Amino acid sequence: MKDIIIVGSGPAGHTASIYSARADLSTLLFEGWMAGGVAPGGQLTTTTEIENFPGFPDGISGPKLMSDMKKHAANQGVEFLMETVESVDLSRRPFKVKTSSREEEAQAIIIATGATAKRMHVAHEEEFWQKGISACAVCDGALPLFRGQPLVVIGGGDTAMEEAMHLSKFGSKVYIVHRRDELRASKAMQERVLANEKIEVLWSTVLVDVGGSNALEYVLLKDVKTGKEFKQEAKGMFYAIGHTPNTDFLGSQITTDDMGYIVTEKGTTNTNIPGVFAAGDVQDKIYRQAITSAGTGCMAALDAEKYIVENPL
Amino acid sequence: MKDIIIVGSGPAGHTASIYSARADLSTLLFEGWMAGGVAPGGQLTTTTEIENFPGFPDGISGPKLMSDMKKHAANQGVEFLMETVESVDLSRRPFKVKTSSREEEAQAIIIATGATAKRMHVAHEEEFWQKGISACAVCDGALPLFRGQPLVVIGGGDTAMEEAMHLSKFGSKVYIVHRRDELRASKAMQERVLANEKIEVLWSTVLVDVGGSNALEYVLLKDVKTGKEFKQEAKGMFYAIGHTPNTDFLGSQITTDDMGYIVTEKGTTNTNIPGVFAAGDVQDKIYRQAITSAGTGCMAALDAEKYIVENPL
Repeated sequence: MKDIIIVGSGPAGHTASIYSARADLSTLLFEGWMAGGVAPGGQLTTTTEIENFPGFPDGISGPKLMSDMKKHAANQGVEFLMETVESVDLSRRPFKVKTSSREEEAQAIIIATGATAKRMHVAHEEEFWQKGISACAVCDGALPLFRGQPLVVIGGGDTAMEEAMHLSKFGSKVYIVHRRDELRASKAMQERVLANEKIEVLWSTVLVDVGGSNALEYVLLKDVKTGKEFKQEAKGMFYAIGHTPNTDFLGSQITTDDMGYIVTEKGTTNTNIPGVFAAGDVQDKIYRQAITSAGTGCMAALDAEKYIVENPL
Repeated sequence: MKDIIIVGSGPAGHTASIYSARADLSTLLFEGWMAGGVAPGGQLTTTTEIENFPGFPDGISGPKLMSDMKKHAANQGVEFLMETVESVDLSRRPFKVKTSSREEEAQAIIIATGATAKRMHVAHEEEFWQKGISACAVCDGALPLFRGQPLVVIGGGDTAMEEAMHLSKFGSKVYIVHRRDELRASKAMQERVLANEKIEVLWSTVLVDVGGSNALEYVLLKDVKTGKEFKQEAKGMFYAIGHTPNTDFLGSQITTDDMGYIVTEKGTTNTNIPGVFAAGDVQDKIYRQAITSAGTGCMAALDAEKYIVENPL
C-alpha cells in the first residue's frame, strides 16, 4: 500500500507529488497514456512557449517545463507509472486504483486529471495547432504572433466573450464566430462586447476549415443560413467552446457539478470523500492556469498529509 | 492613473504583476523597503535553497528565484518602485496608495504584502538563520542537513504540533520547546504528538540562545520553574510561534480575521471591497508556500482584470 496515489501528470499532479514525497510519504503517480487525449505531462505538452509561469523570465516550452517537473518529482523519490487509470474504488480505505494491468492501493488519493479543451477537429487543424490555433486566450493572447493581427474566437458563451475582450487588446480585430443568431453570454458581457469597436460578431456562422502556409493565415467559415462558405483572414484562432473535465474513470463516486467538474470545498482540495482530494483543472473552471494548478497541487498534498497524520491506517 | 497597483514583492505580487501586464493592464508594483522586516522579494530572500518550487529539479536559491521573477515581470512591462506603502485610501475609486514621497492611483489594487514569521531574536539568532534555523518545517524539514539529527520546534499550538510530526520523519528526535506546562494544540493533535516516540515535549522551557560553529549545533534553553539553563544538541530549530500578516498600512479599511489575516471570499481573491484583491500569505494561514502564493497571485490578476472589464472607470 502506498501513502498517496496521484492520478494525473500536469502541473497539479507533479506539484502534489513533489510535496508528498518531500513529506516522506510513499508516492505513486499515474501519468496516463493519452488519457483525455493528451500525452503524459498534460495539456502543457501541447503548447509551445509558456511566458507566464513565474520564475522563467525568458519563457519555457511546455514540454520542457513538464519534463523538468517530472525530473523534479523523480529526484524527490516519486514513483511513476505511465498507465491510464481506468477505475477506482473509493468506497473504503485503502482506496483502490485500477489500470488494465494492475491494481494499487493507497491511504489517500489526489485526482489531478485535468480538463481537455473542446475542439472541432476540422480537417487541417492539427497542422496549425499552436501555430496560430490555441484553446487559451489568457495563456497565448499576448504572444508577438498575434499582435496587431486579425484574430478569431470560436464560441458564444461568457468565456468566449471574456477571451474576445482580452484579445481585443492585442489583435487588430477580433471576430467571434458563433453558430446561432444570439449569444449565450450574460447580457452585461454581451453589451461590453458589442460596444467594443475592435470586436465583430459573425452571427450564424460555423468553422469549416483552417489554412495557411507555415502558420495559420485564414479560417474557412460557413454562413449556416445561406450555406455559403467564405474565408476570413486570421493569424490566430481561439477555441472557447468549453472544456471536458477528465472524470469518467471515477464513475459517480465523487460529487461533480453540472459541467462535470469535481466539487471541492472552497479554499481546500477536499472532495466529498474524506481522504480523496482534487487539484488542478479537473476542479477549476475559472482560472485554469499552470501556476494555479500547481498551487492547488501543493494544497492537495498538504491536505492529504494532514489527513493521513490524523487518520492513519 | 494605473490600471492595477500591486503592493508586495513576493511570489504572489510578482505573479500577479506578470499576469496583469500580460493582459495589457498598466501595472505598478511597490516592492517595499524592509517592509515587514524583509527585503524586496519577500520572505524567500531570507532562505537559501528552495527544493519544492516545481520546475526546478535541482532546486533554486530564494534570492535567485525572486530576482528571476522580478526580471520576468519587468520583461512583461511591469513598473517597479522600491518604496514602502504607508497608507491607502480605499473609500472610493480610483483607489489611492501613498508612500512617504508619492501618491499613486489605480482602478484596482492587489494586496500581496505577506506575513512575517514571528521569531524570538535571541542573541546569536541572525548568525545561524538558515544555517539550521528556519520558520517553515514544511519548506525546509527535508533538507539533508536535518536528516537523522536532533531537531527543536519552538511553540505549543497546532502548527507547532504539525511541524513536529512532519519533522519526526526526518530527524533522529524532535524536541518541542514550550514555555507552559500544557499545550494549546487541539486534544487530538496532542495525543498524536505525545504518542510519537521520536517527539519529546520539553515543558515549561524557553529559548535563551543558540550556538554552534559554522551551523547550528545547540540551543540554550531555560527551565522557567527552576530557572536553570541547559544546552540541548540541535542541528535544526524551527520557529512555530505564528506569523504577523503585514496589514498595518491598511488601517481598518479591509476586513481581517482575529489573527489579522485579510479575509477573502474562498476560492477567489475578493476582499470585502470590490476592486481590492488579496493574494499570498497575507490571506493564507494554512498553506503558506511559494507555489500556493504564486497561484493566488495569478488568481488576483485574473479577478482584477475581470473586475476592470466589468467596472471600467
